Amino acid sequence: MAGKVFFSVSMSLDGFIAPESHAVGVRAMESFSAPEERSTDPDVQRWMTQWMQLQQWIFPQRFFRENLNLGEGGEEGRDNDIARETFERTGASVMGKRMFDLGEKSWPREAPFHTPVFVVTNDKRDPWQRPGGTTFHFVNDGIEPALDQARQAAGDRDVRIAGGAATILQYLNAGLIDEFSITLSPVLFGSGTRLFQGVDADRVALQPLRAEPSPRVTHLTYTVRQR
Amino acid sequence: MAGKVFFSVSMSLDGFIAPESHAVGVRAMESFSAPEERSTDPDVQRWMTQWMQLQQWIFPQRFFRENLNLGEGGEEGRDNDIARETFERTGASVMGKRMFDLGEKSWPREAPFHTPVFVVTNDKRDPWQRPGGTTFHFVNDGIEPALDQARQAAGDRDVRIAGGAATILQYLNAGLIDEFSITLSPVLFGSGTRLFQGVDADRVALQPLRAEPSPRVTHLTYTVRQR
Repeated sequence: MAGKVFFSVSMSLDGFIAPESHAVGVRAMESFSAPEERSTDPDVQRWMTQWMQLQQWIFPQRFFRENLNLGEGGEEGRDNDIARETFERTGASVMGKRMFDLGEKSWPREAPFHTPVFVVTNDKRDPWQRPGGTTFHFVNDGIEPALDQARQAAGDRDVRIAGGAATILQYLNAGLIDEFSITLSPVLFGSGTRLFQGVDADRVALQPLRAEPSPRVTHLTYTVRQR
Repeated sequence: MAGKVFFSVSMSLDGFIAPESHAVGVRAMESFSAPEERSTDPDVQRWMTQWMQLQQWIFPQRFFRENLNLGEGGEEGRDNDIARETFERTGASVMGKRMFDLGEKSWPREAPFHTPVFVVTNDKRDPWQRPGGTTFHFVNDGIEPALDQARQAAGDRDVRIAGGAATILQYLNAGLIDEFSITLSPVLFGSGTRLFQGVDADRVALQPLRAEPSPRVTHLTYTVRQR
């Protein structure tokens, strides 16, 4: 029996999953991975501050620290369980080229997926194998072939559409998402990349599945039905 | 001891508190209050469908039915308690002219506030007293004088900034909101009136206070601090 197709993102209360703008984000991630050259550009600093606020629920979690080899210890409450469950259900991921470009600058050598990852891109490139079990495959013929390959690779486990927003929306509007989770963070961005920009609202209907508040955030899960 | 200043709205998961557009909404509300002339305009029908989806959690509640004289009965769970608590804490409301214009076409003769309401507007108009205790006062000198008058009228109870989005944002950006509640509905609009459009994200910081899932929606409450 095949797994589900899902996405799981952290979102600001005003609907953004990344600060303004992608170009600034690329510079922020370069700065992040080379702290000795940390940028003093106010745009880069603002981007990184908002990003840290959005994601701050996950940094203290034991699972997050283990998965990125940041050391022992960490919190073990429901936030930690949810982070771990999201990882463990995922047999393969799909991402867009922009997310890959951003991640390539910021993931550690041992990239945090530990499964096959299918990158939807026009770039022709051989599979890129990282230590720890992550292999990036570059798929040049669109979102459906990428998903087919991910399903194949995932076996009984689920396929995660990792991002970014534009890629998630393509899958959502195409009716290819079974369910999704949003970790709603108590922060307002004012601008940035909106998760649901361009959603086909006449087509996508939601059914609430779970809502789990934690002291830091609210974890919301919905199933998707096509109208 | 003075009460708090708060707002409480239903929001779509993609951040809208009203469908597209205000002009269509005015026609939808006219149609709503005169069902024998129900519009067949697809824009009006779409507006009303989205509005009903956004607000559908409240229609079956006992408090809502009582408050609008829709008859006996109704649900009495946590959704009902929250609707009642929001009403009971409110000693006076403030609203913008656009919300008033929309409401004037759709509220019953016995308007559902049962307290003084201060309308921020350039229109000069005598107080408009409705049966059941609602009196609309038209304030011509801006948001702060309107709030001062509402505080005075509310006494120990709280002041609710009723809407619409532009008015709520003016108070939020001016640092005049103490806390707010969002009832997050499992619906995507794609377009419409965004709650947080134009928020001064560098100034407004949030602290989560409560998150209460119900089977239909998620009730989120935040306190606001100025940075």
